Amino acid sequence: MHIILLSGGSGKRLWPLSNDIRSKQFIKIFPGPEGEYESMVQRIYRQIRSVDPDATVTIATSRSQVSAIHNQLGDQVSVCVEPCRRDTFPAIALACAYLQEIKNVDADEAVAVCPVDPYVDTEYFEAIRDLTQQAEHGAAKLYLMGIEPTYPSEKYGYIMPETTQAVSRVSAFREKPGREEAQAYIRQGALWNGGVFVFRLGYLLEKSHALIDYADYADLYARYEELNKISFDYAVVEKEPDIQVMRFHGRWMDLGTWNTLTEVMGETSVGNVRMNDNCENVHVINELSVPILCMGLKNIVVAASPEGMLVSDKEQSSYIKPYVDDIHQQVMFAEKSWGSFTVLDVEDESLTIKVTLLPGHRLHYHSHAHRDETWTVVSGEGIAVVDDAEIVARAGTVLRLPAGCRHTVIARTGMTLIEVQMGKGISVEDKLKYSLEAKYGKHRS
Amino acid sequence: MHIILLSGGSGKRLWPLSNDIRSKQFIKIFPGPEGEYESMVQRIYRQIRSVDPDATVTIATSRSQVSAIHNQLGDQVSVCVEPCRRDTFPAIALACAYLQEIKNVDADEAVAVCPVDPYVDTEYFEAIRDLTQQAEHGAAKLYLMGIEPTYPSEKYGYIMPETTQAVSRVSAFREKPGREEAQAYIRQGALWNGGVFVFRLGYLLEKSHALIDYADYADLYARYEELNKISFDYAVVEKEPDIQVMRFHGRWMDLGTWNTLTEVMGETSVGNVRMNDNCENVHVINELSVPILCMGLKNIVVAASPEGMLVSDKEQSSYIKPYVDDIHQQVMFAEKSWGSFTVLDVEDESLTIKVTLLPGHRLHYHSHAHRDETWTVVSGEGIAVVDDAEIVARAGTVLRLPAGCRHTVIARTGMTLIEVQMGKGISVEDKLKYSLEAKYGKHRS
Repeated sequence: MHIILLSGGSGKRLWPLSNDIRSKQFIKIFPGPEGEYESMVQRIYRQIRSVDPDATVTIATSRSQVSAIHNQLGDQVSVCVEPCRRDTFPAIALACAYLQEIKNVDADEAVAVCPVDPYVDTEYFEAIRDLTQQAEHGAAKLYLMGIEPTYPSEKYGYIMPETTQAVSRVSAFREKPGREEAQAYIRQGALWNGGVFVFRLGYLLEKSHALIDYADYADLYARYEELNKISFDYAVVEKEPDIQVMRFHGRWMDLGTWNTLTEVMGETSVGNVRMNDNCENVHVINELSVPILCMGLKNIVVAASPEGMLVSDKEQSSYIKPYVDDIHQQVMFAEKSWGSFTVLDVEDESLTIKVTLLPGHRLHYHSHAHRDETWTVVSGEGIAVVDDAEIVARAGTVLRLPAGCRHTVIARTGMTLIEVQMGKGISVEDKLKYSLEAKYGKHRS
Repeated sequence: MHIILLSGGSGKRLWPLSNDIRSKQFIKIFPGPEGEYESMVQRIYRQIRSVDPDATVTIATSRSQVSAIHNQLGDQVSVCVEPCRRDTFPAIALACAYLQEIKNVDADEAVAVCPVDPYVDTEYFEAIRDLTQQAEHGAAKLYLMGIEPTYPSEKYGYIMPETTQAVSRVSAFREKPGREEAQAYIRQGALWNGGVFVFRLGYLLEKSHALIDYADYADLYARYEELNKISFDYAVVEKEPDIQVMRFHGRWMDLGTWNTLTEVMGETSVGNVRMNDNCENVHVINELSVPILCMGLKNIVVAASPEGMLVSDKEQSSYIKPYVDDIHQQVMFAEKSWGSFTVLDVEDESLTIKVTLLPGHRLHYHSHAHRDETWTVVSGEGIAVVDDAEIVARAGTVLRLPAGCRHTVIARTGMTLIEVQMGKGISVEDKLKYSLEAKYGKHRS
């Protein structure tokens, strides 16, 4: 089967573990099958592979997530990059053009579009596999997944099926209702709209060309910024008379807040955490190396990362957004395709950063106009390139990189560097990139 | 007046702001007269000066606190260093020998001994000034301060005065009683023993020579390790028939736990802290630069430093000690006479440290047998000395210091350095010190 995972959001509601460049789907807090912690995207990717080892998975996302995706899923996963945010219809149109032209998917084959962030079991992807089979062989144009409601939620859209059968034609859609309306819909057999859309690729290509004037994938990509922001529900679903919905009553959780996220954590703590016996219903996630000690807490979530620390009553944690919007600081850590970085220290005219490189990966070959840097290799081995000269880099190697000098490190093994940046107004914008491809092969940012 | 401040303790009860080398008296959380935060020792030192600008203050303490004392009180304060911990009688005997020989205090002059950590107002030191005048002119051998009890505490010793007058002879002492006993004592007019001892210097020198076989200060210092651990109460007070006690009913608080400490904090938070309106009776102290966000908390103390983070119900916070005893990590920050250091990153075979130097101060001239270091100056100016060669050091200067090389930095202005240490089994023990005094003057560690 072909799956398009929509991976969006900047995830302020799970601060300080999510930030402007790490969305919630990349936080590693779910116990994985081999004892390690998985992120949402890693969990879902593993679940899809376990249901269908031959599934092609394409992640539709923004440029800012590409590095984290490659870091967590490896270099083989397909990523369809949106040049900018334009809501779900343009994103799905672009991903479908990508599947047709880059992945050579046939117009008759079914494609399933799913959000990347529901917390589900594998039966969810078994249901999606069934839906793709129905889409390929059935008569309807569009197949949806309807989640059996567990309470009259005001934050989901509702699908009204014609019958109570497992698969039914859709009679109507209802957008986020009030509580009493929601209760009434549920009595009428309504289902939550889980954001899953399944169709034959040709169907969506037709819709795209009907609604957007473009020649091919490259053309669509080039004019992406001009497109209207419009949701797939609004542009396609609500206008399509021929839709079927399949009921799903397996586990389906929307883990958008600390309160809901901690419900599915396998353990009460992740990381260096100590709790006394008087703690009740407390969850602690510590991404720092120093310990967190909790004593006598009740119904509390504690989360710490290089960005900061949250200590919140679990219910209150869903109101976090305005407080986080008010925090203005630079990004303190990020996962990149080549490894990761963490800001260790911020001074007026210097930044100290720890950089880890994955084996076989490298930084961009780059220079800075307004800052000098000192890099000290503290572990691992590789080659540094400084103004086109190669230098063997291993623990103890110190590189002095004055402003203007071109530099990179190509890791042979995993490497760790301490980078001290010095200058006035240090900024991530101050970076000129150069090509090293001729000599060292393709680089993925 | 002459005051000996007894400064002891390693302060695990206020973890993570106190640690093995920073005792609670050095935590800066009390609003000072000029808007800055003061530590307990800074507050008490300022209060003494305001009551008697000519007071001589001598701090009796262990070697591990000397740097922090000079950092917080300046280089002029007298410090009498105990070579090792031997309880209060040896400490007071040593300090009195120090006053006699090093400070030339006359045997007829009165000396007041006070703990460094009660939270008091200036009237406390006015009372001590009165006591020193009584000790110089009065008939009794020893004068104590008796604190009017506010509840039947089980953790203090009680003094039984003969009368209810402001100053009275002492009839008896009672060690930490049970609650009912304490209530009975208080009904009989008992006072808490505040640990203040006032006497003429000659009195204590006599007692010291009677109980310890030593020639002079240097001899006492040299044989200090051989002395028995014995308290001043046990060795002197309980054996002295001629004692007077003065009642004190001003503010006197023992700030030994987070619960009591937060009661006297001027504000509910110190540092980069955000709280929503649903927090009640919450105190947060954040010594990190990244923010702490608290939502919907009640009766909670949060404290964060480079050592770790505590989140505790206020009452539970008094049971912290065994949990902190169980945390084994290196010291992550310290205040030194020359400035301070903070550990930024710990890896198997490297440590990254931020060092700040105060203007005019310098590190020891030293070398390491088993580690290489890279120092990058990120702000300020001074002179680096590397294997006896002088190098101008300013923002951008990088020093590569292989194992065995002698090195130091002498700060002209305030300076900040990032130090990357590399080697197997990095240890603070791996340090050889050399003298630079002939050329650069005396160094204070």
